[in-house]
Amino acid sequence: MAYSETIKVKLKSQDFHDITGYVENIVRKSEIDDGICNIFAIGATGAMLINENEPMLLEDFRKTLEKISSSKELYQHVENAHSHIRSMLIGNSQSIPVKEGKLMLGTWQNIMVVNFDTRNREREVIVTVVGD
Amino acid sequence: MAYSETIKVKLKSQDFHDITGYVENIVRKSEIDDGICNIFAIGATGAMLINENEPMLLEDFRKTLEKISSSKELYQHVENAHSHIRSMLIGNSQSIPVKEGKLMLGTWQNIMVVNFDTRNREREVIVTVVGD
Amino acid sequence: MAYSETIKVKLKSQDFHDITGYVENIVRKSEIDDGICNIFAIGATGAMLINENEPMLLEDFRKTLEKISSSKELYQHVENAHSHIRSMLIGNSQSIPVKEGKLMLGTWQNIMVVNFDTRNREREVIVTVVGD
Repeated sequence: MAYSETIKVKLKSQDFHDITGYVENIVRKSEIDDGICNIFAIGATGAMLINENEPMLLEDFRKTLEKISSSKELYQHVENAHSHIRSMLIGNSQSIPVKEGKLMLGTWQNIMVVNFDTRNREREVIVTVVGD
Repeated sequence: MAYSETIKVKLKSQDFHDITGYVENIVRKSEIDDGICNIFAIGATGAMLINENEPMLLEDFRKTLEKISSSKELYQHVENAHSHIRSMLIGNSQSIPVKEGKLMLGTWQNIMVVNFDTRNREREVIVTVVGD
Repeated sequence: MAYSETIKVKLKSQDFHDITGYVENIVRKSEIDDGICNIFAIGATGAMLINENEPMLLEDFRKTLEKISSSKELYQHVENAHSHIRSMLIGNSQSIPVKEGKLMLGTWQNIMVVNFDTRNREREVIVTVVGD
């Protein structure tokens, strides 16, 4: 069996948005008991992250990314190379196990979509559940 | 079809533990011939890695991570921000193809669970196989 | 249902090779309408990337990786530690949703296999589609 739904989220530049509740709801609607849930962010300057949704931690993470791929550096790909590079380092998809109809996340694991682009963007996230 | 099992591993801080043999065994027990095997580490300071299990390489990797997200830096999220940041950079899940009942890993590709937390932790890893 | 095929690509050191067309063709041949497509690069110095296939951006990305894990640094794992480290940071697999028989990629999302090794390599990529 396979079931999927698309989530749309409006995000400012460098923002993280927690979609854990939406994904849990889609897993419930899929009626799949055991399998894998894939979460994929459309767009080459977006990313999917699983971690603690704690504002100070996310700010620390932004600072680390600014050190690794600075927005002030001169790149050959004009305008938003650092946005693409951050997306490549984090990745656009995450896969989470589903057991007895539930997403198997740890207590501090939240699913967040990230907009690394230099401007506001509506991000599209496709949630796909496969299994029995 | 879907089959899953949970592995528990005790790890020191910044340690890597090779679970390739355990995962291969679970794939065998699943009796799934063709599909995908997902390996997911529970916890926001853990990670799943696929690479060569060579102590000097893993030490080189630790040093690179210490440069990227130093344990000596001052973060807003107290205590273990660097542990979370390393987990976000590496990721909590890996997916590997299964063909004719076998995990399709290269010669130097081992599956390792990592504990980036500042203290010893028992890490829970969920192995899920989906396919025919 | 599960369907898989292997792609082989000859790559120079630090080269990216776009395989989007090949993967789309395999998804078509799989006759799977809804599910997940996993793309896995065999080898501990290879990687799978989803992003814009734009030569200047890829050059910017190479420079960022050279900053993070320099090829000039002295490592304990001789010869190609930086190749392994780059592979660990980017990862060997990507999973993309399949809907109505189509890979759900954004306009600027291309699937690229990367050879981070210090020498030319033939890279093997396994494409696996699971679903209905």
